[in-house]
Amino acid sequence: MTTTTATSVAPGTGASARPVQPPGPRRGLGVGEYTLADGFWGRRQQVNAAASIQHCHAWMERLGWIANFDSVARGTTADRAARGWQFADSEIYKLLEAIAWQLGHAPTPELEDLYDDLVTRVVAAQDDDGYLNTRFGHAGQRPRYGDLEEGHELYCTGHLLQAAVARVRTRGEDALVTAARRAADQVCAEFGPSGRAGLCGHPEIETALAELGRALDEPRYLEQAALFVERRGHGTLRPIPLLSSAYFQDDVPLREAHTWSGHAVRALYLAAGAVDVASERGDTELLDAVARQWDAVVARRTYLTGGMGSRHQDEGFGEDFELPADRAYCETCAGVGAVMVSWRLYLQTGDVKYADLVERVLFNVVAVSPRADGRAFFYSNPLHQRSAGSDVEADAENPRAEGGVRAPWFDVSCCPTNVARTLASWQSYAVAVEPGGVTLLQYAAGEVDVELEQGRLRLQVDTSYPDDSTVTVTVLETPPAAGALRVRVPRWSDTATLGRPGASPHPVEPGIAVALPTMGAGDTVTLTLPLTPRLTWPDPRIDAVRGTVAVEVGPLVHCLESLELPTDLALDDVQVDATAGPRSAVDGHGVEVRLLGPAHGGPSDSAHPMPYLPTPPPPVTDDAERADWVRLTPYHRWAERGPTAMRVFLPVRPTT
Amino acid sequence: MTTTTATSVAPGTGASARPVQPPGPRRGLGVGEYTLADGFWGRRQQVNAAASIQHCHAWMERLGWIANFDSVARGTTADRAARGWQFADSEIYKLLEAIAWQLGHAPTPELEDLYDDLVTRVVAAQDDDGYLNTRFGHAGQRPRYGDLEEGHELYCTGHLLQAAVARVRTRGEDALVTAARRAADQVCAEFGPSGRAGLCGHPEIETALAELGRALDEPRYLEQAALFVERRGHGTLRPIPLLSSAYFQDDVPLREAHTWSGHAVRALYLAAGAVDVASERGDTELLDAVARQWDAVVARRTYLTGGMGSRHQDEGFGEDFELPADRAYCETCAGVGAVMVSWRLYLQTGDVKYADLVERVLFNVVAVSPRADGRAFFYSNPLHQRSAGSDVEADAENPRAEGGVRAPWFDVSCCPTNVARTLASWQSYAVAVEPGGVTLLQYAAGEVDVELEQGRLRLQVDTSYPDDSTVTVTVLETPPAAGALRVRVPRWSDTATLGRPGASPHPVEPGIAVALPTMGAGDTVTLTLPLTPRLTWPDPRIDAVRGTVAVEVGPLVHCLESLELPTDLALDDVQVDATAGPRSAVDGHGVEVRLLGPAHGGPSDSAHPMPYLPTPPPPVTDDAERADWVRLTPYHRWAERGPTAMRVFLPVRPTT
Repeated sequence: MTTTTATSVAPGTGASARPVQPPGPRRGLGVGEYTLADGFWGRRQQVNAAASIQHCHAWMERLGWIANFDSVARGTTADRAARGWQFADSEIYKLLEAIAWQLGHAPTPELEDLYDDLVTRVVAAQDDDGYLNTRFGHAGQRPRYGDLEEGHELYCTGHLLQAAVARVRTRGEDALVTAARRAADQVCAEFGPSGRAGLCGHPEIETALAELGRALDEPRYLEQAALFVERRGHGTLRPIPLLSSAYFQDDVPLREAHTWSGHAVRALYLAAGAVDVASERGDTELLDAVARQWDAVVARRTYLTGGMGSRHQDEGFGEDFELPADRAYCETCAGVGAVMVSWRLYLQTGDVKYADLVERVLFNVVAVSPRADGRAFFYSNPLHQRSAGSDVEADAENPRAEGGVRAPWFDVSCCPTNVARTLASWQSYAVAVEPGGVTLLQYAAGEVDVELEQGRLRLQVDTSYPDDSTVTVTVLETPPAAGALRVRVPRWSDTATLGRPGASPHPVEPGIAVALPTMGAGDTVTLTLPLTPRLTWPDPRIDAVRGTVAVEVGPLVHCLESLELPTDLALDDVQVDATAGPRSAVDGHGVEVRLLGPAHGGPSDSAHPMPYLPTPPPPVTDDAERADWVRLTPYHRWAERGPTAMRVFLPVRPTT
Repeated sequence: MTTTTATSVAPGTGASARPVQPPGPRRGLGVGEYTLADGFWGRRQQVNAAASIQHCHAWMERLGWIANFDSVARGTTADRAARGWQFADSEIYKLLEAIAWQLGHAPTPELEDLYDDLVTRVVAAQDDDGYLNTRFGHAGQRPRYGDLEEGHELYCTGHLLQAAVARVRTRGEDALVTAARRAADQVCAEFGPSGRAGLCGHPEIETALAELGRALDEPRYLEQAALFVERRGHGTLRPIPLLSSAYFQDDVPLREAHTWSGHAVRALYLAAGAVDVASERGDTELLDAVARQWDAVVARRTYLTGGMGSRHQDEGFGEDFELPADRAYCETCAGVGAVMVSWRLYLQTGDVKYADLVERVLFNVVAVSPRADGRAFFYSNPLHQRSAGSDVEADAENPRAEGGVRAPWFDVSCCPTNVARTLASWQSYAVAVEPGGVTLLQYAAGEVDVELEQGRLRLQVDTSYPDDSTVTVTVLETPPAAGALRVRVPRWSDTATLGRPGASPHPVEPGIAVALPTMGAGDTVTLTLPLTPRLTWPDPRIDAVRGTVAVEVGPLVHCLESLELPTDLALDDVQVDATAGPRSAVDGHGVEVRLLGPAHGGPSDSAHPMPYLPTPPPPVTDDAERADWVRLTPYHRWAERGPTAMRVFLPVRPTT
């Protein structure tokens, strides 16, 4: 791996180089305003830049998805069927967005060339009137907007627009931005107030139009985003066979819905767009609706990992408390969507709960997906893998987003590029510039270098979090009256302290804590977030994990991999002794729980051929021979050592 | 409802009037050999004949599925797109099979006319070479066998053949039987040893060809069935996008598989066909393979109800112990398939476990589907319905097979006609004629009138089972040396007795018990199967129902409907007191459990916005104000009183 973080480079256009810029008193950081050192997130951003981006590019070239653009440009669509699914264009756009963000803070000649090459090929496929899609509207293809339900045309356009937002905010207008502007104009002409009252089966255009409108100062795009949000929920789209209109959120207007349902990624992208529209218009009713839905979903339809979407069927949200660990879909893209919505809600409200969820999702969904080398990905993120399965072939697509193995590519390959664009712009979600100061919301070693209204502020962040419990912030440079330095104390941390050199640390409650009432150059403050392993008990209404506990350490959900078990004990048969609690491993590496088992009543036999018995299961005996301690794995690294069964929620011996 | 059971009529061709006639020492009854009185099954058979059959016919006429045949006959397929899914033909055939069986034991003029009309229209659509399918091979249609993966052509032909089996065995050869013979010949020509090595994505042709071969004494059909079984499992079919070849059992040869996986109905139909082939050829390896798979599935992939197939996604079997109650798919058709396989295995082995499962599935899957009036059906049969939902419109199709409400029809409407043909031939699975006598395997009031080798045997069965615990059998007439009368004592009954008039009843163990060592006219024997409500505990490896119990009464799984609950207690919040056990209701109707609750730790709040807590859920207090008894509902009648939430497995307060 090459290290491409170039700390001496500060490209991009500073504060504006961030994906989300709603009106209001808060802003995130431009991607160039926080240079990450080699920590948890810095390392992932490096691997993303040095490996994942090229990996995604190579696969899409190999599969002919990029050549779909060449085919349109050359007018050969009648002779060459477009490759991949109907949404393949969007993957190229998401990759372009990832590259654009990365070029915004750590450019390399290779990425510059890749960006230029892709943009050249993409814009060559644009029709004269601005329409840009490789599989509709050309010779041998279906007519434009001929399948709004499943065609994903506006969805693809949305991702084009988001890529252009990344570019215009880091480098300014270029051919891609111009193409996006023309595409957006075409959308407004087609679907505007005097156009057809259509909408796209897969939301995405809404948030994209809103942000491009902000980036280019084009109110029409924001109006069009609002139109798409308001149009939805009235049964405009024809139901897809075997699906209801709830699948694509066309059953209930968003401002009337109580929760999110249907396809999880669609629901989350739509909600993000709705917050954009609400914040632009001061529409508190709409904002409150999304906030209410967020509360309902986080309280009753969200996994411990922050994962959302419990159903493989329809990739959808389940009902309240329908949260099976083994069939948790928890699509990686839904994690990205949860970050998008939560971040937008934080910017509007400043409520720390949104930043808490962002942390949970980043560590336990987004960071789970890429393999350490950045060349294979999880698509779904179950919390329980029953069978170890077999290793994936290095060059084989995974047809289905089943859990158990990271795959280099998928038939529907939305997740790798979505992870890539999120990691490449990670900085923007980490720190908020707010009235009266700045707030550190996520922790990563590096240097914040931000232009406040008052002048330049530089902060050095030293931490190995989440491997270490301390985060030390040093003010390197500050303008006068820069205000306070605030830090997020995560909800899980009930023994956090803040300490200054020469003074005793004082305890701080979860929430937002003032670390420095006024920042002065040379000031240093240390936030300590003790990483004592803890047990977490699910609400008893979650049937699927009744009688179990999970182990968390700091922000990291842990899991038990079967490859850690003694050979005579299957993962199915494990119980743990919750009274013994988790402990730090004897060798100092990781966390262990005390193991009991086997837990079942023996195999089914001719007397009881079914797994249903006339007596309660016998209690597990506390056999000194068997009782043992077993090491857990941070969930984000499971299956990294090869195929393994796994479970996050561990059955406990009932306590008396 | 009109009662069409005509006890004085004994049509059909006696012993041969049954769906399954393998070689071997055991046989079921011809449908005319057991006349049902007005009991649990007799009533259902009456409703099926008087309501469901007409209901299915009316829907298929209304939707134009039957007119698809007219369109082919008239050569108008180029102008009229066929209606319904590509497997709609099969529904007409399954309906014809249901009618044919019903005409075999309780004919009515209306059913005779309906049969004749449908057959006339069906056979008019047959091509000159015997091919018969309404959506392939004609003007404006795809070519024949152009989509073996998804086209369902051979599947449809299979159901045509099964309808013909029903007809030829009850009335003899007619136009439908001739059409089926010609269609089977066409299949043999196309796919025979010298034809193409294809197979159908949905098994069904295998068991159909085997039985038609037996019915028409045509060994070529049996050979073709064997060819299809052996051809499968070698990856011949192209995988459907996003599915693996395990979906349609083309990944592993059946004789090598350890369990059933993929689409449940397909796996079960294929297994039925494999038993047919194995029994025909004396292929004990193949028979043992299916028996081994049955054991594995019943031990680890089967619901308490006998339902199979835990996944909505792909309508598939889950992994071992992946048995979520709320998302249990348990397709009604998989219940039919489980009866098909189990019955065939019983006939080959005489092992009572297969008949035990047949009882469980008949009462808790097949009988669940039709509403009491026979005009609405469940397609999936979950064991937990989280939300009450809303009532279905009387004339609306249900697009998705979601649980919660019986629907008059479905977009994919395989289940209603499958239930219809099963109920119409229920008798054939109830009694086995075996070496040394007859064995009563299922209990229903009525009269058995069977021609043994030795002469005529008539038995009167008096019972209100499963509402009452006694089954009294009286020998009305018997030939000399008719042998023993044996009865199945269900696995769940550990206090059964057999009693003769004037003698003390004696206990009998679960299994097959000899009720009368030799039958003599006038002999009477009473089997008593006490219906004490009992708790059933799931194997702890079934995560989804850990910490719960179910209540069973005799063969009937019970459930708690939310409409029985006090208004201040939601189904999500219920715990039951297992130490108090279930009891007969105070008013003498049904069964009650002692209720505790609410069981959760209060709603999520700002301190704990997610449903995961740092401490164990507080124990439910045994509050005299709250503790109450609540009535359960037999699972087969849930949702009969309107929309309701429901659960079979009831969380228990942990016992110390």
